[in-house]
Amino acid sequence: MPASPATFTFLGPEGTFTEAALMQVPGAAAATRIPASNVNAALDMVRDGSVDAAMVPIENSVEGGVTATLDAIASGPELRIIREVLVPISFVLVARPGVALTGIRRISTHGHAWAQCRLWVDANIPGAEYVPGSSTAAAAMGLLQEDAHYEAAICAPIVAQEQPGLAVLAENIGDNPGAVTRFILVGRPGALPERTGADKTTVVVPLPEDRPGALMEILDQFATRGVNLSRIESRPTGQYLGHYFFSIDADGHVQDARMADALAGLHRISPATRFLGSYGRADTQSIHVAPHTSDEAFRAAHEWVGGILHGVPLVQETASEASPTA
Amino acid sequence: MPASPATFTFLGPEGTFTEAALMQVPGAAAATRIPASNVNAALDMVRDGSVDAAMVPIENSVEGGVTATLDAIASGPELRIIREVLVPISFVLVARPGVALTGIRRISTHGHAWAQCRLWVDANIPGAEYVPGSSTAAAAMGLLQEDAHYEAAICAPIVAQEQPGLAVLAENIGDNPGAVTRFILVGRPGALPERTGADKTTVVVPLPEDRPGALMEILDQFATRGVNLSRIESRPTGQYLGHYFFSIDADGHVQDARMADALAGLHRISPATRFLGSYGRADTQSIHVAPHTSDEAFRAAHEWVGGILHGVPLVQETASEASPTA
Amino acid sequence: MPASPATFTFLGPEGTFTEAALMQVPGAAAATRIPASNVNAALDMVRDGSVDAAMVPIENSVEGGVTATLDAIASGPELRIIREVLVPISFVLVARPGVALTGIRRISTHGHAWAQCRLWVDANIPGAEYVPGSSTAAAAMGLLQEDAHYEAAICAPIVAQEQPGLAVLAENIGDNPGAVTRFILVGRPGALPERTGADKTTVVVPLPEDRPGALMEILDQFATRGVNLSRIESRPTGQYLGHYFFSIDADGHVQDARMADALAGLHRISPATRFLGSYGRADTQSIHVAPHTSDEAFRAAHEWVGGILHGVPLVQETASEASPTA
Amino acid sequence: MPASPATFTFLGPEGTFTEAALMQVPGAAAATRIPASNVNAALDMVRDGSVDAAMVPIENSVEGGVTATLDAIASGPELRIIREVLVPISFVLVARPGVALTGIRRISTHGHAWAQCRLWVDANIPGAEYVPGSSTAAAAMGLLQEDAHYEAAICAPIVAQEQPGLAVLAENIGDNPGAVTRFILVGRPGALPERTGADKTTVVVPLPEDRPGALMEILDQFATRGVNLSRIESRPTGQYLGHYFFSIDADGHVQDARMADALAGLHRISPATRFLGSYGRADTQSIHVAPHTSDEAFRAAHEWVGGILHGVPLVQETASEASPTA
Repeated sequence: MPASPATFTFLGPEGTFTEAALMQVPGAAAATRIPASNVNAALDMVRDGSVDAAMVPIENSVEGGVTATLDAIASGPELRIIREVLVPISFVLVARPGVALTGIRRISTHGHAWAQCRLWVDANIPGAEYVPGSSTAAAAMGLLQEDAHYEAAICAPIVAQEQPGLAVLAENIGDNPGAVTRFILVGRPGALPERTGADKTTVVVPLPEDRPGALMEILDQFATRGVNLSRIESRPTGQYLGHYFFSIDADGHVQDARMADALAGLHRISPATRFLGSYGRADTQSIHVAPHTSDEAFRAAHEWVGGILHGVPLVQETASEASPTA
Repeated sequence: MPASPATFTFLGPEGTFTEAALMQVPGAAAATRIPASNVNAALDMVRDGSVDAAMVPIENSVEGGVTATLDAIASGPELRIIREVLVPISFVLVARPGVALTGIRRISTHGHAWAQCRLWVDANIPGAEYVPGSSTAAAAMGLLQEDAHYEAAICAPIVAQEQPGLAVLAENIGDNPGAVTRFILVGRPGALPERTGADKTTVVVPLPEDRPGALMEILDQFATRGVNLSRIESRPTGQYLGHYFFSIDADGHVQDARMADALAGLHRISPATRFLGSYGRADTQSIHVAPHTSDEAFRAAHEWVGGILHGVPLVQETASEASPTA
Repeated sequence: MPASPATFTFLGPEGTFTEAALMQVPGAAAATRIPASNVNAALDMVRDGSVDAAMVPIENSVEGGVTATLDAIASGPELRIIREVLVPISFVLVARPGVALTGIRRISTHGHAWAQCRLWVDANIPGAEYVPGSSTAAAAMGLLQEDAHYEAAICAPIVAQEQPGLAVLAENIGDNPGAVTRFILVGRPGALPERTGADKTTVVVPLPEDRPGALMEILDQFATRGVNLSRIESRPTGQYLGHYFFSIDADGHVQDARMADALAGLHRISPATRFLGSYGRADTQSIHVAPHTSDEAFRAAHEWVGGILHGVPLVQETASEASPTA
Repeated sequence: MPASPATFTFLGPEGTFTEAALMQVPGAAAATRIPASNVNAALDMVRDGSVDAAMVPIENSVEGGVTATLDAIASGPELRIIREVLVPISFVLVARPGVALTGIRRISTHGHAWAQCRLWVDANIPGAEYVPGSSTAAAAMGLLQEDAHYEAAICAPIVAQEQPGLAVLAENIGDNPGAVTRFILVGRPGALPERTGADKTTVVVPLPEDRPGALMEILDQFATRGVNLSRIESRPTGQYLGHYFFSIDADGHVQDARMADALAGLHRISPATRFLGSYGRADTQSIHVAPHTSDEAFRAAHEWVGGILHGVPLVQETASEASPTA
């Protein structure tokens, strides 16, 4: 991926939270931005070279993993997650100018948005009927059509700002005021994003055998190197019930020696392990690294074993204190 | 819960795969069955005593955990999963009588169903437009209305069988022929379902501390007792990013000594652990139990320690072979 | 064992460090004390009821485990370690009155004592020849015999104090001034020593299978319950090379719930596990117990699981905070 | 060490089992063999270059680890174990020609030999008195002296064969007919013994912190790489009670990738870890290596991570089967 991709795609249409996420990427505001109708279409545009990268939703703090997105990245030609973006979720209720709350009987929006505004709707427009929308933006734009069969829509503030034909009847109507949604920018394999000290690595690990302890062996590869996990999900392989793989986010970058070592361990016990990317954490929260898992500790250990293999005497300066007295 | 609940609710409307799942429960065909508009509403009817149990969808072999359902069970007044049901997912394309494939421009269904029939649609009705529906059954029933703005719907075979006003244009149009969806029957706390030898236990475990190894400690409670896991998902607590709990399915029944012991271990390290139920596996696949994790091994160990605590000599018959010679 | 045993044996002869250890036991000074010629003879006197308990050496801070003693306890009819005693090791050089350092050519003592005084001897009586003795006390007493073929002996201060025929030529001649030897008092199975909060439990665990991880499973029984180990030794079973058992000291008393639970776990994976005793630590250093491994945590967990098994609703007061929001 | 060391030392005097062990080393029969008076003296001759290697006893199948030997190797300037030798232990009773069993009142030998012949002595020379000897050979040779104050000695067959002045009164008088003692040949650091496929590696690992789980972390370094342990002993550091190190024998050679990786892990968590040698097992029993811990698995994992770090696409041939379907 070039430092500033010239072209992007995103889960459209225009005006969604996903486009808001893309706008946070340096250079994206001035770049070509092509909406995609679904996540797979967006990823295919990256795979076939039509665009340089795709912004797609992955999770929010209320609903957990949007697993379909990760599954789509984990199968087919390889892709890489190159950036994580957090967007505060703030919903507005929009209608055509002149429509009042009392005139609303039916409301359209995406199912997830509806779920997150139910308390407000029940309190303020009791009895309102829900009309499913394919996205929050599509629901809002639908109000502008002649044959709209609903009177209001719930969407992101960005839509209303750009559409003079829509009026905002209420703001911040989400039931969970601190809600945040996570998005990822996905590119093709190539140079890794730079290590920032506040990184995250995503992998997909097929379970080698379905027996007590197999999952422990996988997780132990991280734990013995002091690598913390921030997300884990078992996922059926899609072939038959009972076969699983694990989708995992781990704290750190593959350029950290402890992470590289953990990935090598995963590869040994599950050779079909997939690396989906190392990238900066959106929250830029740096990671505590125990001294014995630092790059320096790995380098020193590597040198020590190298000395043994090449027949060099290896007395450590500290050995006289730690080893037994004669 | 009485052996045969008199009244059930299910995620409606009538004609969904969820109702098909409920029909598999002994006695349900003859019982009162009340459709609910969403999972929370169904669970609330159980909690307030309006019905005896609710059938709700939980997972399918393509899309992984439907986590919102588990979250809804895990919060609020306690509920219990009392049965698991698997339903083969088979989709049909329906339209009003007289409509041909060539006359279809817009198709409505639930988003999940649409995702699972994309290949068939692309191959057979290229260019078809998607109209979101709140359920497969609602999309199908919508065709019967005067102002329907789409020509066809994708739904379960059960709908077409019951509705003379709908014609089946194509059967088995799902892209994944072996697809199966998992449903659970949820009741109030009470007597546990009987142990069958092919059981599953579901728990929710808040992560006690966010550090390397905390997850390992949780999983170790199962592994050291020889209990296999069939599903694990980390889930944000909904309070703020970075705080997690784990939703876990483990093989076995809480009446198995190894499972009771594992749950006790979980409770110690994470006292807010929630037990969501022990119930028969839908696949009735019995579990291999290692001799040292059998009920008998637990009983013998308990007696042995009891003997120590009460000052009884404890020479084991096998001790002379296994212990050192003088 | 009665609270104050009337009769004791100890590894003799009189005047050894072992008798000094026995004198630390309340009531022993006034009790019958019978020297035994070797550890097995002492233990046999306990087994056949001739005495109530035996004091035998087990370890010192320079030489590690005196494994033969533990092996002798671990085989044959069951015994129990009921007390641990530490004795500072201070050596003196004794000779007949009138003999000077310059007149010494040969020195007798036990091999262990000789090893611990080599630096002093080399510096002060260079060229001295070593004459093996069966004990430090025997070497000293031998000086009183007509045909003694050595001029000096290294022994415990207690010997010289009691024998007017011996003169002390030098004190504190040990090379390691802080040396301490550990002794144990061994009785028959019966009432356990009272829990003091600074206890130790000794077990012998045959390795169930010789494969990677079997030892880990054993140690995990302690680690998952927060039980620290203060000693571990693999020991051949004496039958053939390659078969092992483990001799382990763990911090805590079997009346501690976490220790009882760990022992039960050991019994399951290795049913020939032997309990050798729970007894107060000689250093009376109390143990830090993590909250989740306290007796209270075990009791609460037991009650929680009991509630599940008996169908009682189980909402925890803290559950509302830790579990997901609706 | 040169392929055929010109000079050896061994724990003397001549005629001991240790010399018998040395005679098994190719070239030793024709080489210079210098007896040493104790283990430390033998090791010092290696350290100061007086000899090329030293043969010293380490263990037998009845008495477990001779820990003093390992402690002596583990402290001071570095040494390397380069070979392991097993010697069957067969005892004979010797006396001056003309002495009969009935004429024996006192028997001399080393304490360990005495312990291993007690049953035979009690049955055949009841009431015999024990006279401590510094070695079995010294006890036998002492019979030839004018002032010998005992009538018989227990020693290795080799002594009697070489001494016309001694008569064998009884053979195979050991209580444990299959007894075997283990010896090690110790040299200076240099080229490692060749990997044979049936190797053993000895290390000394100071316990980094005295807390539950620290030992587990050490052992986990072996277990996660599929390395089995054949011996472990905790040993006090000699500084103060409560501080420990571990002396460990592990199956495999440091030239095995899994062992090199395990040692690197040990070095990270306990930087004062000492490598005492990789050398062929005396029993030449080859080790089972799980596929995921083979050198090939380590090489493949290393290449895979290398590819990630250098931006190469990494699709595995097996990935399409093991990873999720689209």
